[in-house]
Amino acid sequence: MTKTTCHITVSVDGFVAGPNQSPENPLGEGGEDLHQWMVETSTWRKDGGERTPDDDMVDEILGGIGAFIMGRNMFGGGPGPWEESWTGWWGEDPPYHAPVFVLTHYPREPVKMPGGTTYHFVTDGIESALSQAKAAAGDKMVAIAGGAQAVQQYLRAGLLDELTLHISPICLGSGERLLENVGNPVLEPIRVIASPKVTHVTYRVG
Amino acid sequence: MTKTTCHITVSVDGFVAGPNQSPENPLGEGGEDLHQWMVETSTWRKDGGERTPDDDMVDEILGGIGAFIMGRNMFGGGPGPWEESWTGWWGEDPPYHAPVFVLTHYPREPVKMPGGTTYHFVTDGIESALSQAKAAAGDKMVAIAGGAQAVQQYLRAGLLDELTLHISPICLGSGERLLENVGNPVLEPIRVIASPKVTHVTYRVG
Repeated sequence: MTKTTCHITVSVDGFVAGPNQSPENPLGEGGEDLHQWMVETSTWRKDGGERTPDDDMVDEILGGIGAFIMGRNMFGGGPGPWEESWTGWWGEDPPYHAPVFVLTHYPREPVKMPGGTTYHFVTDGIESALSQAKAAAGDKMVAIAGGAQAVQQYLRAGLLDELTLHISPICLGSGERLLENVGNPVLEPIRVIASPKVTHVTYRVG
Repeated sequence: MTKTTCHITVSVDGFVAGPNQSPENPLGEGGEDLHQWMVETSTWRKDGGERTPDDDMVDEILGGIGAFIMGRNMFGGGPGPWEESWTGWWGEDPPYHAPVFVLTHYPREPVKMPGGTTYHFVTDGIESALSQAKAAAGDKMVAIAGGAQAVQQYLRAGLLDELTLHISPICLGSGERLLENVGNPVLEPIRVIASPKVTHVTYRVG
């Protein structure tokens, strides 16, 4: 059965983005530092450098996920509808290289990007998005890419099988929290991968 | 040099106590569950059962710490002053078995408890408490026992050398947060110990 996961980077104090998010700075103040661990891996840089445990994690994200689900804000900001010319924050070659199902209230034709990412716009709710993503993922995982609210919705609805937190060793102080309004999910730590830059904890969600 | 540490259990969403703390329920709703991992170790139970990685952690806490520092609330609740007969939340045989320096505004003679715990009341600030605790700790560590506000004060002041978070796999939703108003401490994960019940991450504080 296709597993529904979420791999998401949080600060030690639980934020996925810093304060004062804006179109110019969608991750907020300090938010880029969260992802330092990832962009510094040789896998991400494709520079053939030495591998660390963080590379295994990046392999899993890049290779193990067959389809993504994303909140509207993470795709393109604001509630939408978006201009037809706006293809989202992720640029001309989005790092997903797979179908991405965007939760929105505004229907739109799929947008095919270079590099294998196709954005599909889903207007009939999180369960529909999940069914469509599962159908598209083949034998790979479906991942809730973010943002925080999308992850919260899936957690609350009991639709997440696994949650992997990449805990970056920084405090952001304020911003967008990941684990808010999620009720009392039963979590079981089933894997921990550690490096000097980040701690990866995978929870099975009961 | 005596190391200043803090070993503290937090929920995945960052709380050290649940909502609605009261004299009857000082850890708040759900707060007791945080410490399940510890009370279930054979070291804590002294039942000679099988050891897990969590026992190593308990060994470190019970054996490696020569003196504790504690906020007034964690000792006895409220701002004080306390009745002379009130020897705090921790009962007749407190689990510290070492000198405990209590941060308070109200002077009081030391209180010697059975089992090796002596409460010393420090009215001239966190640095004084730390000096006194270091002098008392010998070649062992000083630990900030809690609560959250005491830990925050030491973190903000740059007086903490290491922070070990025992991350319990529960969400409390609300309550007392650990990492609030701590500025931007430089944290470096230097050790991770994992078990099916809890994830222990030790950060060097820069």
